Amino acid sequence: MFTIAEADPALTKEQAKPIEARLRTALLKAQYKRLQKNGRALLVVIAGIDGAGKGVAVTLLNEWMDARHIRTLAFGEPSTEEQVQPFFWRYWRRLPPRGRTGIVFGSWYKPLLAEAARKSPDLQKLSAMAQEVRRFEETLDNNGVQIVKLWFHLSRDAQVRRTDQLLADPDTAWQVMPEDIKVRKKFDRLRKAGELAIRLSNDPSRPWQIIPAADPLMRATCTGKAVLAALRDTAAKSPAQPAATDQAASPEVLQELDYSLSLPKSVDYDRELARWQAGLAKLTRHEKFRKLPLVLVFEGQDAAGKGGAIRRITHALDARQFHALPISAPNQYELAFPYLWRFWQNLPLPGAIAIFDRSWYGRVLVERVEKLCSPAEWQRAYGEINEFESLLQDNGALVLKFWLAVSKEKQLERFHDREQSPFKSFKITPDDWRNREKWDDYLEAANEMFERTSTGRCPWHIFPADDKRYARIKVLETIVESLENALDVRTAP
Amino acid sequence: MFTIAEADPALTKEQAKPIEARLRTALLKAQYKRLQKNGRALLVVIAGIDGAGKGVAVTLLNEWMDARHIRTLAFGEPSTEEQVQPFFWRYWRRLPPRGRTGIVFGSWYKPLLAEAARKSPDLQKLSAMAQEVRRFEETLDNNGVQIVKLWFHLSRDAQVRRTDQLLADPDTAWQVMPEDIKVRKKFDRLRKAGELAIRLSNDPSRPWQIIPAADPLMRATCTGKAVLAALRDTAAKSPAQPAATDQAASPEVLQELDYSLSLPKSVDYDRELARWQAGLAKLTRHEKFRKLPLVLVFEGQDAAGKGGAIRRITHALDARQFHALPISAPNQYELAFPYLWRFWQNLPLPGAIAIFDRSWYGRVLVERVEKLCSPAEWQRAYGEINEFESLLQDNGALVLKFWLAVSKEKQLERFHDREQSPFKSFKITPDDWRNREKWDDYLEAANEMFERTSTGRCPWHIFPADDKRYARIKVLETIVESLENALDVRTAP
Repeated sequence: MFTIAEADPALTKEQAKPIEARLRTALLKAQYKRLQKNGRALLVVIAGIDGAGKGVAVTLLNEWMDARHIRTLAFGEPSTEEQVQPFFWRYWRRLPPRGRTGIVFGSWYKPLLAEAARKSPDLQKLSAMAQEVRRFEETLDNNGVQIVKLWFHLSRDAQVRRTDQLLADPDTAWQVMPEDIKVRKKFDRLRKAGELAIRLSNDPSRPWQIIPAADPLMRATCTGKAVLAALRDTAAKSPAQPAATDQAASPEVLQELDYSLSLPKSVDYDRELARWQAGLAKLTRHEKFRKLPLVLVFEGQDAAGKGGAIRRITHALDARQFHALPISAPNQYELAFPYLWRFWQNLPLPGAIAIFDRSWYGRVLVERVEKLCSPAEWQRAYGEINEFESLLQDNGALVLKFWLAVSKEKQLERFHDREQSPFKSFKITPDDWRNREKWDDYLEAANEMFERTSTGRCPWHIFPADDKRYARIKVLETIVESLENALDVRTAP
Repeated sequence: MFTIAEADPALTKEQAKPIEARLRTALLKAQYKRLQKNGRALLVVIAGIDGAGKGVAVTLLNEWMDARHIRTLAFGEPSTEEQVQPFFWRYWRRLPPRGRTGIVFGSWYKPLLAEAARKSPDLQKLSAMAQEVRRFEETLDNNGVQIVKLWFHLSRDAQVRRTDQLLADPDTAWQVMPEDIKVRKKFDRLRKAGELAIRLSNDPSRPWQIIPAADPLMRATCTGKAVLAALRDTAAKSPAQPAATDQAASPEVLQELDYSLSLPKSVDYDRELARWQAGLAKLTRHEKFRKLPLVLVFEGQDAAGKGGAIRRITHALDARQFHALPISAPNQYELAFPYLWRFWQNLPLPGAIAIFDRSWYGRVLVERVEKLCSPAEWQRAYGEINEFESLLQDNGALVLKFWLAVSKEKQLERFHDREQSPFKSFKITPDDWRNREKWDDYLEAANEMFERTSTGRCPWHIFPADDKRYARIKVLETIVESLENALDVRTAP
């Protein structure tokens, strides 16, 4: 079983001085090297008992390193916005870019530690929390964000000694905070809680490192050494997943689709469209909708009619409540973060709608086909994406994903049409023609994507779109019916 | 006097069709041209009576243009974070970058309109609000953000007719919101309020444009035309200020400073430092401090000891409450915004401290000397900066600005020292030597800066720093004493 040693090792000033000088030079060197090489971002998680001098150690670390490339990320009580977003949102939002370091106070371990510190902690709940935290860290670690976790530890005696010493001198008494005194009374319980939380969340790829915190010089040099080791560790932690060898081909969903499906002649399209739009408009203006974040994802081949379908939706919405995000290749700045980062930045609030014209599925479509990421990366992405959508749903969001499927012949026809139209010609680029050459590769990627990410909770809605009107009505119908279910509201036709 | 015409012009479908087709092509072309040329950002402010179809018009505009480069910015009730920041903060935060368009609902005119709509509006208050709004727009306009303001207008009869028509058909009734009905009762008062607000905030450089809103086709084409005209207008609106001709030289503050000032031999530096740090620590942990945002600005020549002075401050602070921002040349992304933008992004919350190691004063120092901006631009910056600091102070912030002054001889000595030290050599670059060659230009810029931005409310604190210890103690002393005054708290030494 995991326990923390009771020793309170110390350093004399004479011992510390040369160590500190070497550390400072080495830290700066390692920091610059990582910056120049555009290496992984580094998150240093700071935790441990109150009154262990965590703040002092971090201030010192900032003094030793080049503070321009470090950010202290202190998370306190969540703001109103943070309260309505998924728990991990605020951590995603403030990730440091590649090459940089973030020092995290009030990390994602806080609820875990709070639960562990209760008189009789719920072990099942704790395990579930630890599981989520582990997956969160794994996703970051696998996508260019290294994580180092430091646990500041000192014995009860040392804590009392340290705070008493500081209190004795009026010029250092300010270093002692009310929490530091309070902690004495329940020291043993808190220490046990820490041990429990550490044990449950333990992950050999990202172990907690114990910083002996009783002696200020020992504490500072250990913190510096741990950060130095992390900065020097340039290899990604997680073992590269072996590419699945016995991979059975996915069902050929797109090949077997009936592309001749179209709106029956008997149906008045304009009337039908207006009817579903009215339904959507009513639902999104319903009181119950104010609590629901709605996420709509559109994927499909070029010229499948994603834009047109989206316009038929937004036509029924108030411009103030939706946000349509056309997703193309990430820009230079976005490339400095994990691929999911830019989507975390654009999650809708309750009562708002985010419409993604292409999405995070780019990772397993264009990035796979164009070899912009490694096979291990896109294979891992299925699980990461399922987890991401699952977190949104846990938080009350309705997530609907659509694939508009066009046949190869129809696509060619539309490309030619676009080239003719004065206000559509901007939509056709050499890229579109290049993608068309890789038609079969994209089909294979899409088929595997359906198989791996169509979950019971969040299925793909796949519609043939050679008849645009048919596809548009199907999309609207799906949204309206899903909203009726989610809100438990009927809109009479 | 300014009044809005009562006419409700309309277009038939046949009239509108060719206009729309031409508009769409022209809008796309203008949009791409601006993007390619990295032209000014465009903010389209949407206002006018409720029930005038503003949302529908903007949705249509989004459909006509390439939505990838437009963002609808809808500002509703301010979040907790927005409530404690200066009023304009949320608008600064969400500015579109160069080349892009933002469509603003719930703009900075909202409080002005609300005041104007009161039974007996406070005209003096209204004028003051209009004044602030005008200065805000002027600062944006002068720094690469074009502003177009559209006022959607329709007569009382037309409003009633429009909403009644929509309500008659169950498939269009959803377009009518409760506000649209409510507005009828107080239509005349609201119309007058709108006229009053428009008149008071009227600025010939950025006039309101009236969009006749009764007829949907007329409304849409007028909106499109106004945006098209704006996109095509590539010249900056504000007349370039003539460079002041009869410019008297500023007092030679830095030349006349006594650089021999140093800490008296009788003073125990360590003891003195600890005393002021303890005072600072106590004050920043005081209950009253939780309501105060603290902004510390450090400027001064290279090697004047800014970093060292800052470390003596942060040493007394909790790592969780301060944020030290070393400011260097803006990166590619920051260059797409007005120069003040990146500072607006980094304002401290109440109870927090932002320490700027170099700052917005770069505009009138390095950017002036290195000719990175035009003389008109840096001359305008004095007023913009005073206004910026004034807004922070109005919002309850304490803003302290320090200039650490080093003599030319002492700087040389320190440059040589730095080159020797293993963990200081990173601080000396060819830039430092180049800046040194322009020593006199920097002195002149600094002296003029003191004269133009040392206001009664926000003076510069200028300290000779050849003796680093002297400067550090002076800085700490100033901060502690200013905080004592601001919080009305004494810390006994």
